[in-house]
Amino acid sequence: MRRARVAYGGAIHEAIEWGNQLKLADGRVVKEEEIMWLTPIEPRTVFALGLNYADHAAELSFDAPSDPLVFLKGPNTLIGHQAYTRRPANVTYMHYECELAVIIGETARNVQKEDAYKYVKGYSVANDYAIRDYLENYYRPNLRVKNRDTCTPLGPWLVDVKDIADPMYLRLTTHVNSELVQEGTTADMIFDIPSIIEYLSSFMTLSENDVILTGTPKGSVNTVVGDVVVTEIEGIGRLVNTIIGDEAFTNR
Amino acid sequence: MRRARVAYGGAIHEAIEWGNQLKLADGRVVKEEEIMWLTPIEPRTVFALGLNYADHAAELSFDAPSDPLVFLKGPNTLIGHQAYTRRPANVTYMHYECELAVIIGETARNVQKEDAYKYVKGYSVANDYAIRDYLENYYRPNLRVKNRDTCTPLGPWLVDVKDIADPMYLRLTTHVNSELVQEGTTADMIFDIPSIIEYLSSFMTLSENDVILTGTPKGSVNTVVGDVVVTEIEGIGRLVNTIIGDEAFTNR
Repeated sequence: MRRARVAYGGAIHEAIEWGNQLKLADGRVVKEEEIMWLTPIEPRTVFALGLNYADHAAELSFDAPSDPLVFLKGPNTLIGHQAYTRRPANVTYMHYECELAVIIGETARNVQKEDAYKYVKGYSVANDYAIRDYLENYYRPNLRVKNRDTCTPLGPWLVDVKDIADPMYLRLTTHVNSELVQEGTTADMIFDIPSIIEYLSSFMTLSENDVILTGTPKGSVNTVVGDVVVTEIEGIGRLVNTIIGDEAFTNR
Repeated sequence: MRRARVAYGGAIHEAIEWGNQLKLADGRVVKEEEIMWLTPIEPRTVFALGLNYADHAAELSFDAPSDPLVFLKGPNTLIGHQAYTRRPANVTYMHYECELAVIIGETARNVQKEDAYKYVKGYSVANDYAIRDYLENYYRPNLRVKNRDTCTPLGPWLVDVKDIADPMYLRLTTHVNSELVQEGTTADMIFDIPSIIEYLSSFMTLSENDVILTGTPKGSVNTVVGDVVVTEIEGIGRLVNTIIGDEAFTNR
């Protein structure tokens, strides 16, 4: 089952995929043109992994980490499918990052790897944009890199955990203006999903609708205003985002 | 005006200080023993400054930062006045940190220093506990240091911005089991409140009920299970917290 959260008719609705349309929880079937996509769940805490693919760490001239490098993202960063991301005029590098998003389904504490998927509600696609100008240290990107408004599209769907046979073997791609620019597989993660859940739940409690962005493979390239950026993960979804400039952002 | 948010009679209430009691928004006057203190607002994003007092940076053998070092905290960390903080059995150092909390009152973007207080709703007291075992780098404490469950008491009051003539000249103290262990003044912040708001709002949007924890002065000492830790800021409030162990936490 693919689930979404959408705005329609002045209210927020849960919805499911219904052929080429969406079926709202109240039974109405609506066209995509009639709705606005929201993030598929209302995230609680958003965790993000840094340097979780060895080829991407090498691309940034960093060693691969020995422990997961995890940081948090604020609610100002999040937007849904088909929305607009602001590219500040005063920065030089803004890189897309296609990432598998893991959405927690229930309270998780001291979880062992072999039980980890029991605590997962499902998956989605994220684009965890980075303003590379400010990437000044290995340990943690600072807020100027990773906490800009609208810089984390998430969606379109929440795909049920039971629908994905092996989340550690999914193809990820990014297309910019229809050109393939990033390609990888979740099989190349340094810390896989069970390891990340074991790690985080070993020292804190994970809760329903916590979101874990699991890192991105090699292939980051600069983007500019007007680019249409499509991050896609096999079986999970195809997330479309358009980059706009300061003026369009403020006037929109 | 001092405002609180409390649980009473099976519901959450806004309340104000009313002599030695609290007056709920619905007019009822209740005793402190009858209520449970919650964080005085429902926080949106929680920002925290690292090393924002030069004497504390020196105490940890770090240089004072040239730009604000800011990280985020998750909702699992937050608790109110008179609540219990878990000290994990498998860590060696757990340090209290008395901090002035600044609560944002309205949307703030590209704010200049001289206008910064217009965007502040008020102040509270935080105790931003740190598990020092994992403080492995200058740039950003990792989640094992700063994102533990219940490790950020906040409260008891939100004090209106207009009630504090000069927030940059307030005495901070921490008492552990009635012994004075930390003493400082907000005058010693490296980046003052207007500078922090100017910095954060220069690259992202601040929103109502975003909370900024402004750092702690020198004086961190280890705490143990059973300690009663009182962080207090002149004119803002006196925040009481008790440290409990793993077993008491789980069984509570």
